[in-house]
This record gives sequence, structure tokens and C-alpha cells, in this order.
Amino acid sequence: MPDLPSVPLTVEGSCVLHQMFHFDWSAWKSLPAEEQQAIAKEAADLLARWEQGSATGHPNQSAAFSLLGHKGDLMLIHFRDSFADLNRIELELSQTRLSHYLKISHSYLSMVEMGLYESSAKTYASLAEKGLTPGTPEWNAGVREVLDRQANALAPRLYPEIPKAKHLCFYPMDRKRGEQVNWYTEPMADRQHMMHEHGMIGRRYADSVRQVITGSIGYDDWEWGVDLFADDALVFKKLIYEMRFDRVSAVYASFGQFFLGVRLPSGNLSSWLQGQLIES
Amino acid sequence: MPDLPSVPLTVEGSCVLHQMFHFDWSAWKSLPAEEQQAIAKEAADLLARWEQGSATGHPNQSAAFSLLGHKGDLMLIHFRDSFADLNRIELELSQTRLSHYLKISHSYLSMVEMGLYESSAKTYASLAEKGLTPGTPEWNAGVREVLDRQANALAPRLYPEIPKAKHLCFYPMDRKRGEQVNWYTEPMADRQHMMHEHGMIGRRYADSVRQVITGSIGYDDWEWGVDLFADDALVFKKLIYEMRFDRVSAVYASFGQFFLGVRLPSGNLSSWLQGQLIES
Amino acid sequence: MPDLPSVPLTVEGSCVLHQMFHFDWSAWKSLPAEEQQAIAKEAADLLARWEQGSATGHPNQSAAFSLLGHKGDLMLIHFRDSFADLNRIELELSQTRLSHYLKISHSYLSMVEMGLYESSAKTYASLAEKGLTPGTPEWNAGVREVLDRQANALAPRLYPEIPKAKHLCFYPMDRKRGEQVNWYTEPMADRQHMMHEHGMIGRRYADSVRQVITGSIGYDDWEWGVDLFADDALVFKKLIYEMRFDRVSAVYASFGQFFLGVRLPSGNLSSWLQGQLIES
Amino acid sequence: MPDLPSVPLTVEGSCVLHQMFHFDWSAWKSLPAEEQQAIAKEAADLLARWEQGSATGHPNQSAAFSLLGHKGDLMLIHFRDSFADLNRIELELSQTRLSHYLKISHSYLSMVEMGLYESSAKTYASLAEKGLTPGTPEWNAGVREVLDRQANALAPRLYPEIPKAKHLCFYPMDRKRGEQVNWYTEPMADRQHMMHEHGMIGRRYADSVRQVITGSIGYDDWEWGVDLFADDALVFKKLIYEMRFDRVSAVYASFGQFFLGVRLPSGNLSSWLQGQLIES
Amino acid sequence: MPDLPSVPLTVEGSCVLHQMFHFDWSAWKSLPAEEQQAIAKEAADLLARWEQGSATGHPNQSAAFSLLGHKGDLMLIHFRDSFADLNRIELELSQTRLSHYLKISHSYLSMVEMGLYESSAKTYASLAEKGLTPGTPEWNAGVREVLDRQANALAPRLYPEIPKAKHLCFYPMDRKRGEQVNWYTEPMADRQHMMHEHGMIGRRYADSVRQVITGSIGYDDWEWGVDLFADDALVFKKLIYEMRFDRVSAVYASFGQFFLGVRLPSGNLSSWLQGQLIES
Repeated sequence: MPDLPSVPLTVEGSCVLHQMFHFDWSAWKSLPAEEQQAIAKEAADLLARWEQGSATGHPNQSAAFSLLGHKGDLMLIHFRDSFADLNRIELELSQTRLSHYLKISHSYLSMVEMGLYESSAKTYASLAEKGLTPGTPEWNAGVREVLDRQANALAPRLYPEIPKAKHLCFYPMDRKRGEQVNWYTEPMADRQHMMHEHGMIGRRYADSVRQVITGSIGYDDWEWGVDLFADDALVFKKLIYEMRFDRVSAVYASFGQFFLGVRLPSGNLSSWLQGQLIES
Repeated sequence: MPDLPSVPLTVEGSCVLHQMFHFDWSAWKSLPAEEQQAIAKEAADLLARWEQGSATGHPNQSAAFSLLGHKGDLMLIHFRDSFADLNRIELELSQTRLSHYLKISHSYLSMVEMGLYESSAKTYASLAEKGLTPGTPEWNAGVREVLDRQANALAPRLYPEIPKAKHLCFYPMDRKRGEQVNWYTEPMADRQHMMHEHGMIGRRYADSVRQVITGSIGYDDWEWGVDLFADDALVFKKLIYEMRFDRVSAVYASFGQFFLGVRLPSGNLSSWLQGQLIES
Repeated sequence: MPDLPSVPLTVEGSCVLHQMFHFDWSAWKSLPAEEQQAIAKEAADLLARWEQGSATGHPNQSAAFSLLGHKGDLMLIHFRDSFADLNRIELELSQTRLSHYLKISHSYLSMVEMGLYESSAKTYASLAEKGLTPGTPEWNAGVREVLDRQANALAPRLYPEIPKAKHLCFYPMDRKRGEQVNWYTEPMADRQHMMHEHGMIGRRYADSVRQVITGSIGYDDWEWGVDLFADDALVFKKLIYEMRFDRVSAVYASFGQFFLGVRLPSGNLSSWLQGQLIES
Repeated sequence: MPDLPSVPLTVEGSCVLHQMFHFDWSAWKSLPAEEQQAIAKEAADLLARWEQGSATGHPNQSAAFSLLGHKGDLMLIHFRDSFADLNRIELELSQTRLSHYLKISHSYLSMVEMGLYESSAKTYASLAEKGLTPGTPEWNAGVREVLDRQANALAPRLYPEIPKAKHLCFYPMDRKRGEQVNWYTEPMADRQHMMHEHGMIGRRYADSVRQVITGSIGYDDWEWGVDLFADDALVFKKLIYEMRFDRVSAVYASFGQFFLGVRLPSGNLSSWLQGQLIES
Repeated sequence: MPDLPSVPLTVEGSCVLHQMFHFDWSAWKSLPAEEQQAIAKEAADLLARWEQGSATGHPNQSAAFSLLGHKGDLMLIHFRDSFADLNRIELELSQTRLSHYLKISHSYLSMVEMGLYESSAKTYASLAEKGLTPGTPEWNAGVREVLDRQANALAPRLYPEIPKAKHLCFYPMDRKRGEQVNWYTEPMADRQHMMHEHGMIGRRYADSVRQVITGSIGYDDWEWGVDLFADDALVFKKLIYEMRFDRVSAVYASFGQFFLGVRLPSGNLSSWLQGQLIES
């Protein structure tokens, strides 16, 4: 029997951009109140349109968050059907008058991704049992069929609406490729097993945390981005701390910067620009 | 008997924000004395209100420190009941006139945390002896009861007043997840033992140093923040140097930047803005 | 028989410069529309000339891309016959009026390179069979002859036209020289074998991705630069993710920053400067 | 016999601040000559006062150095009796008119420290021979007595005058805590032996280099700072290169940035501000 | 027989400073043509004087290079008899009007160094055969005599003229001190052997590349700086790539940033300031 592939199948959905901004309060406060109001309205109207997303097709929404700490004051996240559409968002924002006061400090570019470890193992095994060889047209057709079926079934999670939870926790991460510890040389079955255990922890938090995983290999400096949405920010710490002890995180995960924000609906943007955080 | 959990129990309290600022002396000194006085008064009044904290409920205080070195001139620390409240502090500060002269250089976001290694081991063992299985509702109820009891008993330390000591030393830290040395794969009992030894050193310094540990997994780029308050800054070096030889620090600790500040009560802020450090 | 060389033969072509820029929208938008149009025309004319390249000799083209994320707004890539010519491009751009609004954020300097692992092994073996010794004039002449033949045969790929695909993915990379894992001490035959497997993956994507490898040892901070051109940006992720599991990437690759851009033909530059991304 | 402590005894002296500045020559040169002279005189008078230090008690001196390279143009080092006094120096400098042209680029905060490896070993052994147990009041009293005696004997080196040598070399350093190589888990006797060998090299350079070691655990981002003072800058290279082969440096040392400066006495500051370096 | 020293002998020559600058084209282009010409002439005259160097004694020359990429636009290298003289160069440059448009982005400080591995081994062996003991006055006198002889013989390379080649490649490097791979604990004979092999590669490129090695232990953040001068920039890649497979580089070398420049003689500086690169 030939070697089975070691690459897990994945299905992809929305293109995603995170934008983190510093807000130049000094310049902003030097504006006359009327001008502030006009600029704020223009920006809030744009954000409202983006929050609403598409009437047809995928949701294609955006959302704003008031960031804590020195990494930024404001974070926007955008889900769109293509990178070109995300680039248009950037350009459209840069044409607003508010953008004069927004200095981009960080960003993250990725694509909603669902890794199908379980499905991959079953599919590879069943295709091999039929006597097919990896890479042949018949094998590829078999894989293609599974991917299409999964993409269909998972469409609502691949092109998600943005959860309305009060807090967002975002961070990028890698799987380690160290000298002794290397995720990418571990047998497929071991990786599948570890990912399963990892998923079981997430499942226990499913009531209080909504998670969106995006892949960024080829798009940004880490391999994945993780967005966690929750009303109670304490569950971020509980969930990630518990996961840090599971094997796939303890041994193979490497983490980037963490960003924590409080949801800022477009209707509250004008108050925020007056220094008020109104809880939605 | 089933495997016991490897995640230690923790109880949490105040949300905490550290803010480090550069002060733009050149711009400040170009102001007329009267304007300086008005701005200083506005800022000192705000700081005084924040120092005082809440009349009811948790202390929810802030404090200011004059920082040494190029990492910043001024540090503010804030303890509040929620991240949204901390965000409001940031927004309120940004509305003051003094904020025009404060350029944020660093920050740290975390939550007061007490790790209950001893209690976890006892609880897990006793629940297992009763024949309960981890993750079952009965087990969870048993754990919940311990957590509630501890949170109650430890409330004054979970929602602390800010100690009035003359110096503050702050630094973030991680437990290592290296290729051979990995805190998160060590057996619970070994971790408990090492944490106990670690705590014994701290206890010998309890008269001269007050320590507040905050957890930042999910909130900021390191796993924990450590605040040490002392009148004599020499004890910071003595304590941390001694700890560096205990096993949990020597082998498993990895440290971020260190910040050292001298307490700056709101009543002395106006003098500081004239270049005077009055010792409280 | 003497030791054969462990250095693979390479042939080189165009000198290549990547330039990433932030665009100062605030300053740009403050210009009168007429001045914007004049500046945009000047820049678009220059880009059009660079896109066209040389009428004779090598293509020597340039291309522009609208970048996603905070690493930059605009990326230019230039293929030229010499580093001096690339430097002239930089100087010529700096003389345009548009350059006032372009702040360079990153760059990458390299030379189109094709590694001839297969050819090297055969050549070394055949020269050794003839009884020649590495480093002797006869040996060097034999090598020289192979290099000349290959350079001739590969000329269209060594001095490539810039593919017209919609997306560009660029990243630099190294081969690891770790304490246990060291590409440069692996036997030539093993490296040849791994590179062959690596190339087989690329070949399966040849219909949808066009790849240009450039060497930058001695020119920039990583050893190689990789440019991937594709209409469908999803294939970047698919290709690089699959490669991450092959041995040479999983074990020996270390990656720098990733840049993703959407092709911006000179004819669309003026629209882009008005905030519009027109797809070519 | 109980385990002896693994922490070496140390005695401490002056609090030390290094400040590195960029000088804004463009702004400075735009000033009228008269204003330059007035500002230069004010700064030189302050520096002269700081150079002179205290008439009574510890020297408490400062010194200026003209830095080479892009890390800064000017370095000030300050020895004072407390961190509050160092903070006052920072504030006093920020009130001068010259400070408008000084942009701080780096700093280092530490405390003069002498590690007593030899003395520690003898003391621990002798107290243990008397049947005392580490941590008991009798043990601590025995240790205290040694520390007091040493602090007294070493006072001139703990509160040093600043050597008048022509060059200063400053760098921070750590002892490694790697996965296999960990200074902090080495037996006390081995560390003592390595430190002794290390010291023997320094002793051979004693005629040409004056060394001041400061500890910064708890105060800054490295564990120690090293200041070397010499008339002939070649000896810095000779000394540090030779030490790099001794065991404690070769295996256990990790180094930060290096700063090299030429002594700039207050009397030469005005010339320096006219672009002249007069050798003292 | 006593242990022989493990530190190789070195002889030193010129003090060397590399300065990398960004040029502020926007500000420069806003100047009237006449003012540009006057400023350019002043700068070109200074550079011409520095290029010429000393009429007597060591060459003490400087040279300018037009840099490629975002790390800088212009690089100056200076060879002088002392660090104080290099500091005077910095100060003199800062007094020119052109310096207003030059923002320093990087620098490197070092001293021409020749490592005498072969000579060291022979000298140590011969002194030991005479029954001398390392560190005794007789031993030191024997070593001193060798150093003086070598310094004399190598003087033209220790105080070199700056080669007139068209391209310069500069990079800093370290020898690794890893946990298993540590140059500084390798036996002297092994290091000597590896350095010999390394040198043999360089020798084969001697016709097309001129190399200057400078030591920077104690002066800057890496241990050595490497300057390669060549008319054909391709040989930089060929040479360094080939060396990367020799043992001392493959296993023990760690590299910093790479800088590539095109020679800019003082006579061409005015054209360069008009955006023209004239090849010398």
C-alpha cells in the first residue's frame, strides 16, 4: 500500500482582514465640534453599512472594537469574498476624513479555514482501500468530492456572520518546527489525535465562546489567526490556559501578540470619539 | 482511577492596566506658566479621584509612578472591575489636556490571579477518592464549590488596594515551553512542589515586599505580570536574584522588560511637572 | 576518489528589487485635484515605461501591486540587468513628485537564481569519472561548460518577463543552520533528493502558480526570495501549506515576512490614487 | 549536613543610570550663536556640578561621553545614592534648554554590585561547621556580619569615583538559562571556580582597564551592566576577546548592545556643541 | 607540559566606522537649485578631502556608496587612526549643511583585525618547547616579539587604502556560542584547521574580491564586520554561498544584516544629488 498523504484537507471561506489603529486624540480634539460631528457621522455611516454586510450572498460584514493598551485604540475586522474586496475596504477607509486621525499600527490578513483532520484520515483510508493511488486523477476526484461536500455543509461557518459578543480576543499562532519538536514531521494519526483532544476542550466552552480560525500561510507572518468572541472576557483566559496544557498547544504551539477589544457598534462610534465607551 | 486534570485551579479578581508614557517636556515647557498650572490641576484632580477609588465595592484604584530610564517617564496602574472600565480610563485620560504631552510607549493588560496549586491537588484527589470523574457535573460542582470558597476567602487580595510603598518594580513573564524544558508537560505534582518552594522565598520577603500577580493569557503578550511594591528598592534585586536560583525560575521562567518607578502621589504631580520629585 | 564538492551549481539572471511603500493619504488628499492629476499622470507614465521594459535584450520590466495590511500600501518589483540599474530606478523614482507621498517601509534585493542540484550531481560524477580533481583548471572548465549551457537554455527563466497574474505573494526564506538540523552539512545527495521532492509539488501547481526564485546571499538579510504569481490567491495557501510538510520545508526552511498584493497596472494607478481598485 | 544555599552573597553600592542621547544638530544649528552659547553654558555648568559630585559622603558623580555610531551622540552616566536621586537627575536635565535637542535613545538602570563567591563559600561552610542551619536567625546573623564587614571594606569600590580614562565601553549581559546550559542550576563550587578564573584575566588587565560591575536584576532588562574605562580603546577588544574563551563567558554569557564613547569633560562641552572634539 | 592558550593572537590596524543614511529627498527637492549646488559642493569637497586621506602616515581614507533598498540611501566608510578621529568625522559631517538631509539609520564600529591562527599555534608550541610557561614575562616577551613582527609585515593590510572596486558588500557576523555548538570551546587546533580551509576559499576569489575583516568585540553588537569589494557583484553571492558550506561558516557562523552599495566617488556626488548615478 502506498504512503498516504500527510497534509490534512482544509476548506476555506471568507477572506479576513484585521486592522489595528492608533487614534490621534490631540489632532482630533483640536477640531471644532461641528467638524468633529460631521466627520464622525461620515465614519459611523460607513461602519454601519459595513456592519450590515451584503443583502445577498455571504454576510461580508465588518465590526469595530475599542482596543485596550498601547498596541492600538481601535480595531476593525472585515470578512469579504476576496482579497481585492478587502483591499477596496482599505482604500475606501483611507478616503474618509476620519482616516486622517487613524494611524495603522498592525494588521492581519487571513482566510477562514476549517481543517478536516478526521475527514482526511477517513477519506485517505477509504480511497486507498479502493486501490487508488495518491495524486492520480481518480484519487483527486475522490478528494474533490469530499471537499465539495464539506464546503457545502460548513458554508455558514466558512462565511460567518460576525458574532455580537461584547469582547474580542485575537492572536496569531504557528505550529512549531523546532529541531526536536516539529509538528510537520509528526505522523498524520498523531496530529489527528492531538487536534481531536484540542477540539474537545473548545467544545466545553462552546456556550460562552465563539471561535473563528483563519489560515494565513502565504498571506501573513504567522500560520493561523484565532478570533475568540465572548461576553465574559474571563473565559478567554480560562479557555486558553486550559488549552495550554493539552499536548498540541503545550508542545507545538507558538503564539504572537494578543489583542483585546470591546465591541464598538457603529451607533456608538460618535460617543467613542467624544471619549465615551457605551456598552452595547 | 482516571487521569487527574493537569490544569491548576485559579481564582481571579481585578482587571489591571499598566500604562507607560513618555512626557514631551519640550512642548510642555513652551506653555505659559498659567496654562501649565491649569492643565496640571486638571490632571492632578483626575489622578486624585482615581487614587481614592470606589467608596463602595472593590477598591478600584489607580496610582502614578515616576519611571526611570528611556522606557518612559510616567507609569499609571489601574485596578478596575472590568476591561470595559479600564478602557473608559484610557478614554477619559485621552480627553484631558495633559494627554497631549503624554505619548504612550508601553502597556500591560492582565487580571489579578491566584494560582491554587495546593488546593487543586487536594481537591482533585478528594473528588477522585469519592469516585467522581473529571468533567462530570458532580466533579465540576465539587470544583466550583472550592473555587467559590477560595474566591471569598481571598477577596481582599483579589481586589487589592494599591500598596503605598515608595517603589514599584513591574515585569511580565512566561513559563517556558522549550524543546526539552516545558513547564506545561511537567507532572502536576512536580509543578506544585516547585511553586511551593518558590512561594517560600517570597514569604521570607513578605515584610519588605508586597507582591501582586496578574494573569494575562488571552489579554497580553506574556502569561503573567508581576508587580512588586517596596520602600527599599534593593530588596527587588535581592528577592528576584534569590528566586532566580530556585528551580521554577532557574529552569522554567522567561522574563520580559523590567520597569522601575518611584511613587508619585497626585498631590505631587504639579511639582513633578515643574521637574521636582518630592518623596511622599 | 577525491571528495566531490558539496556546493550545488547555480545560474543567475536579472537583478531584482522589491520596494514596499506606505502611501501618505492625508498629505495626498490635501492637494488640489488638478495637482493630484498632474502628479498621478507623471507617475503613471513612468510606471508604464517601466512595465514595458526594454525593446531589445532582456525584458527588464517593473510592476506595481496594491498591498494588503499595515506593511505597506504599494509594492513595486523591478527586474534589471545590474544592481546599478536598480539603484537608478530608486533614484529616478525619488525624483518624481509622487515620491513625496511614498514612505518606503521595506525592500528586498536579490538576483534570479536557478539551483542545479540534479545537474551538479551528474556533472561532478562525470568529471570525477574522467579522473579530474575538483578545483583543477580541467575540472573548472568542465563545470564552466555546463554552466554556460544551462544559462543559455534557461535564459527565458533567468531574465523573465513579469507574469500578468492578478496576485503576488512574496516572502524571503533561509535554510536552517541549527545545532542539530543544518542544511549546509547535509550530504549533497540528500539535499538533491529533498529538492527534487520539493520541486515535484511545485510542478503540480504549475498551471495555476508561476514561481520566481531569487538568491540574496550577500545582498539582503535572507538567503532567498520567493515570488508567487497567481490569479487565484487561494492557491498560495494550498501550495505553501502542502510544501510545509515536505522534508526540505518542514525541517530546514525558515521564513520571513509575507507580502500579498493585487496587481495594479499603470493604467489603473490614477484610479488607485482616488481610492479605487480596478481589477485588471 | 543540610544543603548549603546556592545563592552567592553580594554587596551593593551606588545606584547607576546610563543615558544615551541623539543630538538634534539640525535644530541646534538653526539657533543664533548667542543663544547657542547661553544654552551651552547652562548645560556645561550643570555637568560641571555633576562631575564634581558631593563634597561629603559618597562621590555621587556624573560624566559625559561622546558616543560613536548611530546608537547615540552623547552618553551620560550617573552614580547616586538612590533611585529617587537618579530620577531627580533625569528631571533636572529635562528642565535645561539643551534637553530640547537631546532625544533619549537608550538607558540602563543598575546598582554597583560585588559578588562574593569566595566569601560566600567560606561563610556557608564555616556556619555549617558550627552546626547552624541556613535560614535560622543564627545563620542569618552570621551572614549579616560577613556582609557588613565586606561592605565596609569594599566601600570605595561600591561608591566609586568615575575614572578619568579617555574611553568608556558599556554593555549589559546575562548568564544563560538554556535548556542544557544553565548557569543558575550549576553547583555553587563550579560557579565559584569559573568566576575565579574569569577574575584572573581581569586582574592581568588591571593596569590598563578599570572595571565597574553593576547588577540590574529587577531594574532593567539584563542581569548585569559592565563599564570598562581605559585610555587605550584597543584593550577593550583584547580583554573581552580573551575572556570570551574562558568557561564562564564562552558557555554562560549572553551579551546585549555595546556602546563606545570618548570622555567629554564639562569644560569641552561647548566646543563639542560647535562640532569639535577636544581630547582631555 | 602546561595547557597552551586557546586565544589566537591578533594584530590590529585602522579604526573603522560604517555610517548608513536615509536621504530626505522631499526636503532636498524643495530647495532652490542654487542652494542645492552650494550644499552639494560643500559636501563633495569634504568627501574629496576624506577620499584622499593623509599625505603622510596611514591612508586614513573615507569612501561613499549609493545603497540599495530601504536600509539606507548612502553609506560612508571611514578608516582612521583612532576612535577619537572617527568621532571627529561624525562631528565634522554633522556641521555640514548636507547633514540636515541625512538621517542616520545604521552604523558599525570596528577595528581592522588579522587573526593569526597559524602563527599562534607555532608560537605557542615553540615557546612551550623552550620550556616557557604561558603568562610568564618570558612567554609574554616571546609573544610580543611575534606580534610586533607580524604587525610590521602586515601593516599595508592593517592600515589599508580603500579599494576602488565598483561594489561594496558589508555585513557583521558572530561565531556561535550555542548549547551544543560553541566556537569558543572548540580546541585551538580544530579552529585553526577550519579557519585555514575557510581562507583557502577566499584565496580562490582573491582576483575578483578584496576582503577587509574588522573586529568589533567591545565596540559594536557583533564580533566581526566583513567588507567585500568587487567590480562584479555576482561574486559576492558566489563567494559567500560557497563559504556557507565550509565547516566554520556552516556550523559556527551567525550573520547580521547585509548592505550592498555602488561606489559613489566625490566627483559624482552632485549628480547623485540630482538623482543620477554615474558609474565610475
